[in-house]
Amino acid sequence: MNEFDLIDILTLKPGSRLDVELGVGDDAAIVTPPESSRLAMATDTLVAGIHFFSDAPAYDIAYRSLAVNLSDMAAMGATPAWVTMSLTAPKKTSVKWFREFSNGFRSLLQKHDLQLVGGDLCHGSLSITIQVIGFLPKNIALLRSGAKVGDKIFVSGDIGGAALALKMLSGQMEVSENYKQILYNRFYYPEPQVELGKFLLGYASSAIDISDGLAADLGHILKKSGVGAEVYTNKLPICKGLKAELGTNEACLLAISGGDDYQVCFTVPKELSSEMVRSDPPCPVVEIGEITSSNMLKFIDIDGNILDISSAGYHHFN
Amino acid sequence: MNEFDLIDILTLKPGSRLDVELGVGDDAAIVTPPESSRLAMATDTLVAGIHFFSDAPAYDIAYRSLAVNLSDMAAMGATPAWVTMSLTAPKKTSVKWFREFSNGFRSLLQKHDLQLVGGDLCHGSLSITIQVIGFLPKNIALLRSGAKVGDKIFVSGDIGGAALALKMLSGQMEVSENYKQILYNRFYYPEPQVELGKFLLGYASSAIDISDGLAADLGHILKKSGVGAEVYTNKLPICKGLKAELGTNEACLLAISGGDDYQVCFTVPKELSSEMVRSDPPCPVVEIGEITSSNMLKFIDIDGNILDISSAGYHHFN
Repeated sequence: MNEFDLIDILTLKPGSRLDVELGVGDDAAIVTPPESSRLAMATDTLVAGIHFFSDAPAYDIAYRSLAVNLSDMAAMGATPAWVTMSLTAPKKTSVKWFREFSNGFRSLLQKHDLQLVGGDLCHGSLSITIQVIGFLPKNIALLRSGAKVGDKIFVSGDIGGAALALKMLSGQMEVSENYKQILYNRFYYPEPQVELGKFLLGYASSAIDISDGLAADLGHILKKSGVGAEVYTNKLPICKGLKAELGTNEACLLAISGGDDYQVCFTVPKELSSEMVRSDPPCPVVEIGEITSSNMLKFIDIDGNILDISSAGYHHFN
Repeated sequence: MNEFDLIDILTLKPGSRLDVELGVGDDAAIVTPPESSRLAMATDTLVAGIHFFSDAPAYDIAYRSLAVNLSDMAAMGATPAWVTMSLTAPKKTSVKWFREFSNGFRSLLQKHDLQLVGGDLCHGSLSITIQVIGFLPKNIALLRSGAKVGDKIFVSGDIGGAALALKMLSGQMEVSENYKQILYNRFYYPEPQVELGKFLLGYASSAIDISDGLAADLGHILKKSGVGAEVYTNKLPICKGLKAELGTNEACLLAISGGDDYQVCFTVPKELSSEMVRSDPPCPVVEIGEITSSNMLKFIDIDGNILDISSAGYHHFN
């Protein structure tokens, strides 16, 4: 098979949105944005050996790659619409691998009514770069910069599971047999919280998706907003089973410092927070602390001790 | 320096378009498309050792990477506006390299009044994925599928130079000393023919940019349009100096089969072609042949012989 046959496999049933006039197959796609809306644009690259294990099933690699990109849309409150995907794969990659990759990618495209409108295919070290474009209403979006002193801090779903999955998958840690599949899914099948993002447009003062860890990502909100925060570690929605595997303290540290869960961390003005919780958010959300004027991020345990999280958060190029 | 310092370098002076409400630094950028226009979206990945030499100056790598992406906009007749860029670079990459990369990227951004609105930075094998979004009017674009029997075929600028540059840069061929810089520039500084693309919206029935070679890329037009073509090799705008280096026959074959020039190959209905040429196109264009009903692409020399071009065009994964 040559490049063009493989492209046919990758772009099989790319979606069929009415706002896509010309999809894959020309020099560029042609799309029509809705009247009076704004667009959210984001891109993320996933590199084998860094963002996923190169021997993982192609289906799972594709799913995770698109999920983490959709997560950026969720964190903006945007409704994702159009996707481009550049795949770089080793020359000897099998046709079966491409088919499974395509299946995984398509399954998530369909779930969110997205269309793959373009891309590129090259040979080289395995890596995937995806770009997603979504729609935002005219006057509202979830930014990192809007947190105010007194706002309540929330986290969606639960956290820490993907970080333990990473330890398990890299052979750093053994976990209970019946926990393995749950953790695996936390890493390869993160749920981009798109519906939550849209729901939060009416409530949240700031938001970010947790890719590098709660401490690092909440840190971005604080820096952009010029504020501090206090987070109560006993309120953290730690992934079920994590404490049993690691003990309470280690589980808590992992939930703070570990990334890859792609849940949403967001702030809500105090006066709106009860209403938000009562208004039936599309996924579980938990209040974990509040924004302070201190310019510091403090994680405080149930005894009032401040945790040392100096090593939290993942940095490339350090 | 950590990842965020390097991102600061890469996103220094990203542009300042009025339609960019939120640029680099949040989960996604926010942009406002013009009313009643359509968007053209395209992406291309450039991998070290395949699309450029990994020891090339970072400035040149960045320039070429953006140029080939803008070329897709040119081939659609679109006006490029917003850019995202994902850079994957080895861990040991120097800060100086990032600075020079950023300078090269910015120089071309500024030339076309573009804004870098987002991106990603990872460590891994050197590779760059860029996505460009441009504007198209409501009812017109340059597609690959519009060529009709009798249309005249044109090529912009000249061709073959980048292919010889590739042979020179890879040490496959020695060239005259005073020709080296010219060829180098053909490869690393292709001129995306954005103004030509916009000009052609009023004339061309189809267009493509020549990335894989005239034979391969014109072949895409023919396939999408369901037509054939006859091209007269003595009319080809072969890069100046190429015949002196290679002899007429080899120069001609290289101009047909070699890619990387990023000129535009386009077709114009016969009755519009003289008017198009008289209307002062923004760069030189040359008529090289015409569309036929034969479903074949024939390159015919001055003596009427048909050239064998069975090996023309670059394919990944073959």
